[in-house]
Amino acid sequence: MSAQPHSSNSGTATGATRKPIAVSGDRPTGQLHLGHYAGSLATRLELQETHEQYLLIADLQALTDHAEAPREVAANVLEVALDYLAIGIDSARSTICVQSHIPELAELTLYLLNLVSIGRLQRNPTVKAEIGQRRFKGGIPAGFLLYPVSQAADIAAFRASVVAVGEDQIPVIEQTNELVRSVNRICDQVLLPEVEARIGRVGRLPGADGGSKMSKSSGNVLRLSASSADIRKFVTRMYTDPTHLRAEDPGNTEGNVVFTYLDAFAPTDFDVAALRDRYRAGGLGDVELKKQLGDILDALLAPIRARRADFANDKGEVLRMLRVGTEQARGPAAVTLSALRRALGFNAFL
Amino acid sequence: MSAQPHSSNSGTATGATRKPIAVSGDRPTGQLHLGHYAGSLATRLELQETHEQYLLIADLQALTDHAEAPREVAANVLEVALDYLAIGIDSARSTICVQSHIPELAELTLYLLNLVSIGRLQRNPTVKAEIGQRRFKGGIPAGFLLYPVSQAADIAAFRASVVAVGEDQIPVIEQTNELVRSVNRICDQVLLPEVEARIGRVGRLPGADGGSKMSKSSGNVLRLSASSADIRKFVTRMYTDPTHLRAEDPGNTEGNVVFTYLDAFAPTDFDVAALRDRYRAGGLGDVELKKQLGDILDALLAPIRARRADFANDKGEVLRMLRVGTEQARGPAAVTLSALRRALGFNAFL
Repeated sequence: MSAQPHSSNSGTATGATRKPIAVSGDRPTGQLHLGHYAGSLATRLELQETHEQYLLIADLQALTDHAEAPREVAANVLEVALDYLAIGIDSARSTICVQSHIPELAELTLYLLNLVSIGRLQRNPTVKAEIGQRRFKGGIPAGFLLYPVSQAADIAAFRASVVAVGEDQIPVIEQTNELVRSVNRICDQVLLPEVEARIGRVGRLPGADGGSKMSKSSGNVLRLSASSADIRKFVTRMYTDPTHLRAEDPGNTEGNVVFTYLDAFAPTDFDVAALRDRYRAGGLGDVELKKQLGDILDALLAPIRARRADFANDKGEVLRMLRVGTEQARGPAAVTLSALRRALGFNAFL
Repeated sequence: MSAQPHSSNSGTATGATRKPIAVSGDRPTGQLHLGHYAGSLATRLELQETHEQYLLIADLQALTDHAEAPREVAANVLEVALDYLAIGIDSARSTICVQSHIPELAELTLYLLNLVSIGRLQRNPTVKAEIGQRRFKGGIPAGFLLYPVSQAADIAAFRASVVAVGEDQIPVIEQTNELVRSVNRICDQVLLPEVEARIGRVGRLPGADGGSKMSKSSGNVLRLSASSADIRKFVTRMYTDPTHLRAEDPGNTEGNVVFTYLDAFAPTDFDVAALRDRYRAGGLGDVELKKQLGDILDALLAPIRARRADFANDKGEVLRMLRVGTEQARGPAAVTLSALRRALGFNAFL
C-alpha cells in the first residue's frame, strides 16, 4: 500500500481551483476512535471525492491543553496519520499535514487575534464547556481560550468553504466566519471565503456507559485500531436497559447505547427498526443483541485495522508522506498570508 | 551616510557568541519622540557599544491596538527606522528588523501562549493600565491582552540577556522571565536565558502640560524630527509655576516641567542646580528659563534632525537595510525555535 502525496492539486488564492476546498483536523492527543469516525471522519471520506481536502494534524493546538506533555503529542501525530490512512484517506487526493510545521498558520493566527475580543472568546459555548471538563490547574491557559482563533486561521489559510466537524464545534465555525468578515471589512475586499460546517451523520456518540460523549480522554472509547476482542469487550460493557433481565421480557430501546450504535454503524441493508421492534416486544436478549452489534463493528473495523497495520509497518514512508503533505500545504497558506499582507499594506518586505 | 547592515555578528543558540545580546523595540504607531529617547533610545546607543543588539520594529504588536489602521502602522515602520538611524543607531552594529516578517516570532508566541493563564495576563499591571487608557470599543482585543507573550517571544527568540525598556514595562519583563522558566522546566534544560531590564536614566517624561506621560497618541510630545520652531513652541507651552508671574519673584521648581526636562537633557557641563537655585530665589523669569531649555533641546535634536533628513532622502536604501536586517534576525530566531522543537520532540519534520 502506498502513501504517495499528490503533486498537482494544490489550490491557490488567485489561480483557478478545480474543486472547492475542505479542511478538517484533529488534535493528536491519542488514537482516533469510533466517535471521530461518526462525527467527522466518514464525512471526510465523502469530501475526498468532491473536494480538494486538507487534513491538519493540529499538534500545536493539542499543546493548548497538553502543554506539559509535548512528547506525547508529538508521538500521536503519527498515530493520527495512521488512522487517516487506515479509514481510507488517500494521500494522493487529500493533503495530510502537520500544523506546527506550517508557520503561515501561526502568523495568520496573530493577525486574527486582534480582531476578536477576550470577552467574545470567553463566551464561546464550546470552549466554555471544554474548560469545565478539563479543570486546568493554575488557570485556563491563554492558548486554550484562543484555540478557536488558531482554528479559524487553519481554515482561512486554505480558503476552505467546507469544514467537516462534529456538531459541538459549530460555535467555532461561527467564530471563524466572524473573523473572516472582519478581515474582509478591514481589507475592503472579499479576501477570505466564509465557511460552512459539514456535520457528521451522528451528532454525539455516547461512550459505552451511555453517560458521556465518547472522548479520547475518558477511556470509554473504541479505537479504530481495536482488535476483535476489544470490540466484543467494549460492546459487552455497553449500557442497555437495566430492567431488561430476561430475554423474553420487553426491553427499552431509548437511551440504550447498543441501539444508538446500531443506528450509527449498521449497514444500510441491516434492518435496525425490525430489531428495535423485537427488543421492545420481548424475545431478544442483550447477549444476542450485542452479538449483532459486535459483528457489525467488527466488519466495519476489520479492514481499517488491517490497513492500519500495513501502514504501521512502514512508518518511515508515512513520515515522508507527512513531510511532503506539510510542504504542499504551505503553498496555499503562504498565498493567503501574502494576499492578507498586501491588503493591509504589510508587504513592503515581501 | 550609509545604512549598511552588518553581516558577521549574528548570534546562534549553540555557537560561541562574542557579546551578550540585547533586544528592544517599538510599536510603529508614529514617529518616536523625546520620551522614547529618555526612556530607552539613549540606553540602546550605549548597548550598541557593548552588546549584539536587535532592534525590533513591532508592527504586528502595533496592530494589537491599531487593528483598524494597518496601513498607518505599515507606513510608520519606515519612520521608526529613520528615527533609529537618526539618533545614531548604526546598522553595521545593531540589527534593525521588522517583526511581521520574522515568522519564527509568531511560532514561538504560539508555544508560549500555552504556558500562561488568562488570569495571569489579566493581572499584568502594565497591560491593565494601558487598557484603562485606551477605552477599546467592542471589548479588549485578544491580541492586546496577549502582547506581553508576543514580546516575551521577541526577547527569547534572540536569547537576549538585556532589554532596554522604560520602567513601565518592568512587569512585562517579569512575565517574560516566568515564561522562560516554564519553557526551561518543560524542556528540562536551560534552553532560554532569563533577561534583565535596563531602565532608562529618566523614568517617565511628562508631556509639556506636565499632566501625563509623554505618549505618541496624546499630541503632547516632541518628536525627534522636530524643527527648531517646533522645539520653541513646545517649550513655550510647558507648565512651570502658575503663581510665578514676575521674573523677580521666587518660583517653584517642583512639578515644573522645564526643570524635569533640564534634568533629563542638559549636558553634564550645564549647571542645572545653579539655575534651580536662581529660580527659587527669584530673578529668573520663565522666558529666559525656557530659552535655555530650548537651546539645549535644539542642540540635542539638531544633529538628529539632520541625519534623519539625510536618511529620509534615500528611503529605498533604508528599506533595503530593513530587509537585510530582518533576514539576518531570522537566523538566530530560527535556531532558538528549532532548539525548542527538538526539546519538545516536535522535530520529526525538520
